Amino acid sequence: MTSRAPADIGMPLDQVDTPALLIDLDAFESNLQRMALAAKQFGVRLRAHSKTHKSPLIALKQVALGAVGVCCQKVSEAEVMVQGGVKDVLVSNEVVGRQKLERLAALARHATIGICVDNVRNVEALSAAAVRHRSTLHTLVEINVGANRCGVAPGEPALELARLIDAAPGLEFAGLQAYHGAAQHLRGYEERALATSNAVRLTALTRDLLDSHGLACRILGGAGTGTYQFEAASQVYNELQAGSYIFMDADYAKNRGPEGGPFDAFDHSLFVLATVMSRPTDELAVVDAGLKAMSFDSGMPWVADLAAAEYFGASDEHGKIRLGGATVELGDRVRLIPGHCDPTVNLHDWYVGIRRGVVEALWPVAARGPGH
Amino acid sequence: MTSRAPADIGMPLDQVDTPALLIDLDAFESNLQRMALAAKQFGVRLRAHSKTHKSPLIALKQVALGAVGVCCQKVSEAEVMVQGGVKDVLVSNEVVGRQKLERLAALARHATIGICVDNVRNVEALSAAAVRHRSTLHTLVEINVGANRCGVAPGEPALELARLIDAAPGLEFAGLQAYHGAAQHLRGYEERALATSNAVRLTALTRDLLDSHGLACRILGGAGTGTYQFEAASQVYNELQAGSYIFMDADYAKNRGPEGGPFDAFDHSLFVLATVMSRPTDELAVVDAGLKAMSFDSGMPWVADLAAAEYFGASDEHGKIRLGGATVELGDRVRLIPGHCDPTVNLHDWYVGIRRGVVEALWPVAARGPGH
Repeated sequence: MTSRAPADIGMPLDQVDTPALLIDLDAFESNLQRMALAAKQFGVRLRAHSKTHKSPLIALKQVALGAVGVCCQKVSEAEVMVQGGVKDVLVSNEVVGRQKLERLAALARHATIGICVDNVRNVEALSAAAVRHRSTLHTLVEINVGANRCGVAPGEPALELARLIDAAPGLEFAGLQAYHGAAQHLRGYEERALATSNAVRLTALTRDLLDSHGLACRILGGAGTGTYQFEAASQVYNELQAGSYIFMDADYAKNRGPEGGPFDAFDHSLFVLATVMSRPTDELAVVDAGLKAMSFDSGMPWVADLAAAEYFGASDEHGKIRLGGATVELGDRVRLIPGHCDPTVNLHDWYVGIRRGVVEALWPVAARGPGH
Repeated sequence: MTSRAPADIGMPLDQVDTPALLIDLDAFESNLQRMALAAKQFGVRLRAHSKTHKSPLIALKQVALGAVGVCCQKVSEAEVMVQGGVKDVLVSNEVVGRQKLERLAALARHATIGICVDNVRNVEALSAAAVRHRSTLHTLVEINVGANRCGVAPGEPALELARLIDAAPGLEFAGLQAYHGAAQHLRGYEERALATSNAVRLTALTRDLLDSHGLACRILGGAGTGTYQFEAASQVYNELQAGSYIFMDADYAKNRGPEGGPFDAFDHSLFVLATVMSRPTDELAVVDAGLKAMSFDSGMPWVADLAAAEYFGASDEHGKIRLGGATVELGDRVRLIPGHCDPTVNLHDWYVGIRRGVVEALWPVAARGPGH
């Protein structure tokens, strides 16, 4: 069920089997450093999101550069991070269900574990689980700052939950989860700035209300790769939860930077390597990477190495590329930039780390899976 | 990297962890029998497509009911099928790349292995690999009968390739691969009949041309769940390659049957079980199954157990359901019918087989993966 790795260490890139999930290690390490530096410069903590990479090995690289720990979205991911040596993990999500609460509370015996809530009954269930395991869950109230997914309304509803948490045995009130997911992919810089400023306002308002009731927010967390500079500069948020910055993808690359230029704070470091397996017409190449090698929820991948070529159609095991005049032969390799990095990584068992054309690393996608 | 199973044998369904990939075993077995019966009645062979299930255990059930073997799309899938006891596997696809040809030719020492080609150079490479391993690859010419993906044009180009195969050491010419993928999801029954009749015509024309040159087609293969009855009745195709019929999905369920009624030849037997993890507003439930638990390439999943509810938005680990008046509480379970079964299965490590509300089977999704 775990597929064998598509490469061996020391192998040249042109021998790697396909489809393979490549990391350009130089670009990846540069991205790690740039975000670490940005957090330092803004004076905020980085709690990188491990839902992007699903790898404790990468998480520990982020921690080594100054991150206080990681976020994840699932108990199964938290378990893998702790098993891999990460000492401080925030599940930046609600968790519901008997087995999951048992596992979460048990895990908190072995690492600092945070969790988010948006429901009174969930507070009670978390507290009972923590008491059973004699552990402490650092519990944040998730507020809806524009994503319209989970979370209670800012202000009074958040205060009510925070009071319950504060009074609940086994739980320690830790602050506010205020992630504006919908703002990350607004294309215009000013649009993202505006959406984030509204999230900042709602977060500050809620923080102040809780403060006035003696409930201090140790963590005011949120931000993604699309907006991190706004939260970082807000003087309100103190933890950044960006994840995709380590890899980038075609969707994030459609964002615009200041003055309409490209959003180029980070480089593309993640690619899916594919082989041309059919050349049915002059203009069409079919590659061996489709729905099972990339996620298409955020659009088609880009063809990295052929300027005019366009990946325009995916089936389960095939991708169709309109060549736009590019010369491509059967057996040629092309690197694709996935539309959406996180769920693309989730389709693979192995990262193949490449430096100067040679395989340097094979890293398991250790927390891959549907997340039960 | 292979996640633990979300259930134990004997557990009641309401204790199964989520997200989980459920098989309703009664519906599944009924689907298996219906297709086996249809093939018998039409007097054609069934070579069920294992790309749907990725499980040699399920493949052997299909063989036990009369299938002559299975198709798959990747060498990695063929390896898993043979390792699991399947004796006759057709890779209904082109395979390009040094390692893959080595593996394919080596596998043909241990089972009957078929492969498709649409390129002269690929014939040469396959032949060389088979000669190296002293094995025989049963080689089909793929013709384009309307899918406009891989395949040569019907008629003369197919003859040219068939002659090359026939002359190539290590290869045995086995027939034509003539799958019309684009016809499967044409909604109207008459539309599908028309598209298939064109594929039948092109296949018959090519078969006759090859016959007249002494090249007999042992296999005339194609058909999917959307069109199988047309190929089966064609007197031209002799092997059906349907796969999805065992599970069905929301996309196939949008097809219409004769006289515009529903396409109900098979029952839904595949579900993703999810838990309600947030109830932020009266009309909104958020469940714990999103992009990492289902594939969205063919649209949103359906909510199986709540008539008016609509799954309308997915993020990586969340799904948003508009309730339409349904009463749902935190912690409730809902069964979702995935939009597209094959790539949804590919996200999971385990099938949880359910009969009368109890877990009866835990089957690995043994050939899961990107397919290198």
